[in-house]
Parts: sequence; C-alpha cells; structure tokens
Amino acid sequence: MTRDLTITEVRLTPILVADPPLLNTQGVHQPYTPRLIVEVVTADGITGLGETYGDTKYLELARPLAGRLTGRSVMDVNGLFGIDLAVDASRVEGQADAGGLRGVQSADKLRLSVLSAFEVACLDAQGRALGLPVHALLGGRVRDAVEYSAYLFYKWAAHPAGVPAEPDEWGPALDPAGVVAQARRLRELHGFGSFKLKGGVLPPEEETAAVRALAEAFPGRPLRLDPNGAWSVATSLKVAAELGDVLEYLEDPTLGTPGMAAVAAGTDVPLATNMCVTTFGEIREAFERHAVQVVLSDHHYWGGLRNTQHLAAICAAFGVGVSMHSNTHLGISLAAMTQVASTVPGLHHACDSHYPWQSEDVLTERLVLEGGRIAVGDAPGLGVELDRDELARLHRRWAADDGGYRDRDDAAAMRVAEPHWRPPVMPRW
Amino acid sequence: MTRDLTITEVRLTPILVADPPLLNTQGVHQPYTPRLIVEVVTADGITGLGETYGDTKYLELARPLAGRLTGRSVMDVNGLFGIDLAVDASRVEGQADAGGLRGVQSADKLRLSVLSAFEVACLDAQGRALGLPVHALLGGRVRDAVEYSAYLFYKWAAHPAGVPAEPDEWGPALDPAGVVAQARRLRELHGFGSFKLKGGVLPPEEETAAVRALAEAFPGRPLRLDPNGAWSVATSLKVAAELGDVLEYLEDPTLGTPGMAAVAAGTDVPLATNMCVTTFGEIREAFERHAVQVVLSDHHYWGGLRNTQHLAAICAAFGVGVSMHSNTHLGISLAAMTQVASTVPGLHHACDSHYPWQSEDVLTERLVLEGGRIAVGDAPGLGVELDRDELARLHRRWAADDGGYRDRDDAAAMRVAEPHWRPPVMPRW
Repeated sequence: MTRDLTITEVRLTPILVADPPLLNTQGVHQPYTPRLIVEVVTADGITGLGETYGDTKYLELARPLAGRLTGRSVMDVNGLFGIDLAVDASRVEGQADAGGLRGVQSADKLRLSVLSAFEVACLDAQGRALGLPVHALLGGRVRDAVEYSAYLFYKWAAHPAGVPAEPDEWGPALDPAGVVAQARRLRELHGFGSFKLKGGVLPPEEETAAVRALAEAFPGRPLRLDPNGAWSVATSLKVAAELGDVLEYLEDPTLGTPGMAAVAAGTDVPLATNMCVTTFGEIREAFERHAVQVVLSDHHYWGGLRNTQHLAAICAAFGVGVSMHSNTHLGISLAAMTQVASTVPGLHHACDSHYPWQSEDVLTERLVLEGGRIAVGDAPGLGVELDRDELARLHRRWAADDGGYRDRDDAAAMRVAEPHWRPPVMPRW
Repeated sequence: MTRDLTITEVRLTPILVADPPLLNTQGVHQPYTPRLIVEVVTADGITGLGETYGDTKYLELARPLAGRLTGRSVMDVNGLFGIDLAVDASRVEGQADAGGLRGVQSADKLRLSVLSAFEVACLDAQGRALGLPVHALLGGRVRDAVEYSAYLFYKWAAHPAGVPAEPDEWGPALDPAGVVAQARRLRELHGFGSFKLKGGVLPPEEETAAVRALAEAFPGRPLRLDPNGAWSVATSLKVAAELGDVLEYLEDPTLGTPGMAAVAAGTDVPLATNMCVTTFGEIREAFERHAVQVVLSDHHYWGGLRNTQHLAAICAAFGVGVSMHSNTHLGISLAAMTQVASTVPGLHHACDSHYPWQSEDVLTERLVLEGGRIAVGDAPGLGVELDRDELARLHRRWAADDGGYRDRDDAAAMRVAEPHWRPPVMPRW
C-alpha cells in the first residue's frame, strides 16, 4: 500500500442555507440557517466531508481544532475525542441552546457536536482512500436501505413580509387539514410510511386533533408527536391517553428525566427523546428511572458515527429502543446518518430528517428518498460529492450576512412577526 | 482498488496445547486443553486469523458456520451476528461451563464465543488486505502499549504421576511463599507491575495470607484476588475488610448479581467480574443494583472486538470500570485483546492474560511482554504470523487424543489425583 492517509489540510466553510418558516415551541425557523462544512484533505489529495451546526460557538471551537489536525492520520478517529477543545463550560453549561430544542446544553455536547463533523470527514476520507463505503468501516451494513419518517411541521405560508427569503412552495399548515395536506404531499414526493408532527406550537387539543386527522388519513401508519417538552406531566398523560391507540411513540412530551419518568409511569405509550438523553452522561439516570423507551440519536451531538453505534449498543443492553433525530441538516449529514443507521441491528423505528425541507444543498446530486427510504450503496466513503460552486455561493451568503442569521435564533424570527413574543415558560401547557 | 475481499475458504483447526497444573475452585487444568484456530481466506489469498475455545460444543457450531461464510465479504462483520447458529439452548442454558469459571452458560454466550473467532479473523484479513493494523479498523489506538498483570495461580509441581504431559519449569505454588516466588519470577520475565491471584482453591485465610505476602513483597503494587465465586457474602466481606488496604479490586468473590450486590453494599473495595456480567443481557440488573465496579471483558464470549468496544462504552456511561479477562489462550487471541484494548479510552486496570503459562503457541514469533506491556504496532491486521508446522503438530495431538482432553474438564483432572473429588457446592466457604 502506497497510500498516505496523513491529513495535510482542513477546510472549514460556514454557510447559510434557506429554511422555511417551520414553527416550534421556541419560535420559528429563520429564513436562513447556519451550517458548517468540513473538508479533511489527505496527502494523496483525498477529501473527506463532514457537516455540523454552523453557529458562532461551533465555529470558534472548530477553527483551532482544524489547525491541529494536520499531520494526523484520517484513520485516527478515536484520538479525535482525546483532543482538548478548551470549551469554556461557563458559557454553555445549563444554558438552553439556540433553538432550545436539543436538551440542556453542556460543554461535552458542544465539544462532541464539533468533533462529530471531523469524525465523519475522516471516515469519508478513509472510505474514499480505501475504496470502501463508510458502513463497511463501521462493520458493514445490516440493511440495504434506511427508512425515514415524514417530518411534519406547523408552518406559515411564508416568512414575514419584507424579510428577504427564498421561495417557499409548501404553503401554510396551521390546522389539522393543513397538516394532513402537508403529509400527503410529503408522502407523494418521497413515499414516507410514517409521520412525525412537530408539536408544542398550538394548544394540545389542536395538536391532538391534527394527529387524529393523520390517523384517519393514513390508517395503521405509525404516528408520532413531539412538543419539545412544552407540556406538564398532567398534560402529557392526557394526550397519551387520548392518542394512545394511534401513537408509535410520544417524543419529549415534558422536560427533564424526572418529568419523563413520571409520564412513562402513567402510560403505555412509549416515550422517545432527543432532549432528556443527549449525552452519555445523561443515560444512567434516565434508564434507571425508566424515563425513556426510545433514544433518538443525533450523530452530531453524540459525537459521530462510532459513538452512535455505541449508543445503540447501550440502548440494546437496556431494552431501550433507538432511532435517529434530526435538526436542519444537509445531504452530507443525511448520508452520514444513513450509513451508520444501516449498521445498527435494532433500528425498529424510521429515522427523522428535515432534509425534504431544505431546498438547497452542497451536493452535486441530492440524496433520494424513495418509498420513505434511502438506499445504502457501496460507493466509497459517504457516497456524495461536493458542489463547490454551490458551497461558495452559500458561503458568500454567510459572509455577507447582516440579517443576524449566523446564530440560529427561532425566538428572534418570531419577534419579527410578533415584536413582544417571548419563548414560553415551560411547561407551556 | 482491485482487491477482492470475498471469503473463498474458511479453515478450522482444532488443536490441543500444553497447560500446566493450575488450580482453581473447579479443579485443575488438564495437561492439554483444546483451542480452535480459524483461518478466513479471501479471493486474493489473504488469510485472517482467529482463535476461540476448542471444546466440542464450539466445534459443532463453528463447522456449519464456516461453510456458510464463503461468498461473503470480510468487511461484513456486523452481519456475522445476524447468522442463526441454531444453538440448542436446552443443552446449555443455565448449565455451568466446562470450567464453571465463566459464569452461567447461555445460548447467547456460546453463540458469541464461536462468532468472535470469525469476527477477529475477518478483521485480521481486512487489515492485511488494506495494509492497516486492526486497531485502525477499530477507530485507532489511543495508547501505544497495553498493560497486563501477572496472573498468579496455586499450582502443583507437575501433573499427576503417570499422566503424559509437557515439561513444567514453574514448580509448585501452594502457600504464600510459593505464590510470592511465582510472582517474582513472572515479574523478572515480563516486568509485570500488578498481580492477580486465582483463588478459591485454599481456605480464605490462606489466600488472604498469600495476598498479604504479595503486598509485603511488592509494596504499592495493585493486587487482585479472584476466587471465582467460591465465597459466601459474609466471607467475601470478611476478606474485603482484611485486604481492603492492598486490593485494587476483588474479582467475583461470590456468585450471582444479588450476592455481588450484597458484597458491594458492604465494602469500599471495588468488585470486578467476569462471571456475573458476561453477556449484554446481564448488564442491566447488575448495573442497576451496583453489583460490580469493573467488568472484565473477554472478547471471546462478548462476541469479538467491536462488541468489546461497545461494552466499554456501556461501562463508561454507567461509571463502571472496564478491563479484560483471560482464559487459557494463545497468541492470536492475545494480539486481538491487545489491539482492541489499545482503542478503549477508559482502560484503567491492567488486563489479565494466561499467556505466560502457555509454553506452546501457533505463531512464528511469540508476543513479547516487556515492562508488563505489549507494544501496539502498526503491522497489518493482528500483526502475527501462523506457524503452520506447529499448527499441524498441535492438531495431530488433538486428532490422536484419547486422554479425554477435547473437552476441558478441570474436575476430571482433579479426580486423577483424588478419585472421589467433586466440584464444591457453592459457596464453598
């Protein structure tokens, strides 16, 4: 073998990508949202791709890290996690994150969210250099396609008047009929066989009605509702009782492990989470209290693809289900999710993905969802190619930003429409 | 890439290797003990090596499995664990294994003990084909040497008179002075910095005296005592109180999770185990009851190197330590242990290995323990080479066996010396 797997260059490109006005309990998506694209280049000129959150606090950690990676091997991914990123814990510990939707912020989660993009980029580079798909580097796929669910959102027809934004063809969804119409369209486009509604936006009765409407429109299909912790334990139990016959699971109905444990003790509806269990340090208490029945991994904040496999093994050992969470992301991360998901034996729930909502991407070819699934091929690495023109265009948008979009702020976006709006005190209902 | 990673042939070679008369609570090692050597050959003629238990029940599962592997890729190790080995659970569930020293037997453990050798062989073949060490395939080493502890045994000077056996240069160890002498010799030969005594052989007072003698001979060195569950909770607590000032941990003082939990509740001495937690299914209860503080992984019965990494991640998430257990094994398995151990971040205890007791091996060059450590190199695969002449010789011994050694039976070996000997009813003391 004459390959040289040494990292000779690391390129970081922050970008802004278009985002529709999707509503959640913390506000509404801004017209543009930041992502960070990572390229790891080897001595042989192989480039591996990674992607993560692009807010300033991630960039501030990624930049010095990038400078320290030259001279290392792309094979050395375990070693990445031993690098001290010098995260200033006082700035993050216990704070809500930008969207308030990813659980309690912590220095560890921030650190891993940055490192994950480099781990993925190294795995992509490994695969390209060795002529192997990433799943083979993770022990091999155990399924040839990964199922995703349709991710339904309450949404406005458009961003507020006067705010520059990209075209939005989706129209509004603010009631059961709108949600069902959105679901039908997503199913027509991508063949989804299960549906998740992002809740916490309207009073629980209205969201319950929307889920009931979905159940009537798509009988027998797995349904999920995710209010991002907006409910009290009592409200959570009430919704669980009302929707128990149609829900695959209820996602983060209330905040915190004690609250989730109280809900779990009072219902047979499984509880899923990407908020109360988001780091390895949160697992023990939640599992011992039987607070969650499904952990939704996000490879960004769990620290990459190998850690996602570890998380899945932990869940399996404790009889807890596993699936995958999504924030706004592009095709690099969707490819990474798909590669690792293909290797996890006990993946019994369709994964989440915002991808259908992203009209822009940095790939030469978008990933294709057919029958609600993404095929897992054997192309080297992640199997995706970077569109450098598009990357440059979206980076220019980031560089020119004067709209306050470099740091995601769903509450600020809401205040454009409602100047006195404040994120609700939880539980809201 | 023009490599062809398809498996075209799998060779299984059962062998008998010399074993000294090492005592444990279930009897004494027989003069010869079975191991199974697995070779996985790719279309390009690359051969990967694996090793596991060689008793008949393992061979019976390995043989049909081997026949089903041709045509698969050596990259597909996750898929190995989806193969149904059709283990006859009624033959194994709840039974004690041959030595009674590996915890409760189960269909799952038997299945994984077989599959692990094929997983290791596939990883070795991958590494050889790709020009990469196995640790790189596991994400990369985080240390450049793996520490082992000296594994001390009560032993006879020789196997019983009249029983054919290989020469034994070690002499007897049946009292504190003998144990200390053995420890000194092992330290001189290999530089070990910590010591584990296999106990459960003599009354606890004598074993306590031996550990105390070790503490005086090697002040400040980590010491461990492992009676393989031979003690009651009360005896365990008594020994823990007496040796608490010198023990790194106490290993499997009593049998079963409830007993271990009772001991753990009554002492500050950490408890380690390779008996009450030996499968993923046993973790939950043991961890929730705080029954163990260190899990000693054995990659054979945990199902290989990736599963060992998963186990380590589980332990880390639950604040439980991890290290590695050893049964009688040869250099292939020692190389595999060393490769995976080099990748585990939180390995805070020296691993166990019987290797210094094996005068025979199937490698062209034995692995070298210096300063109690084995260096982790970057040679492709496991970094070891098969000595085919020696493999053939040890296989001929197996084929010709009429001494009843094809299935390890420590009690039978004891009865050669003491015809009426029976394995003790537990707890013995």
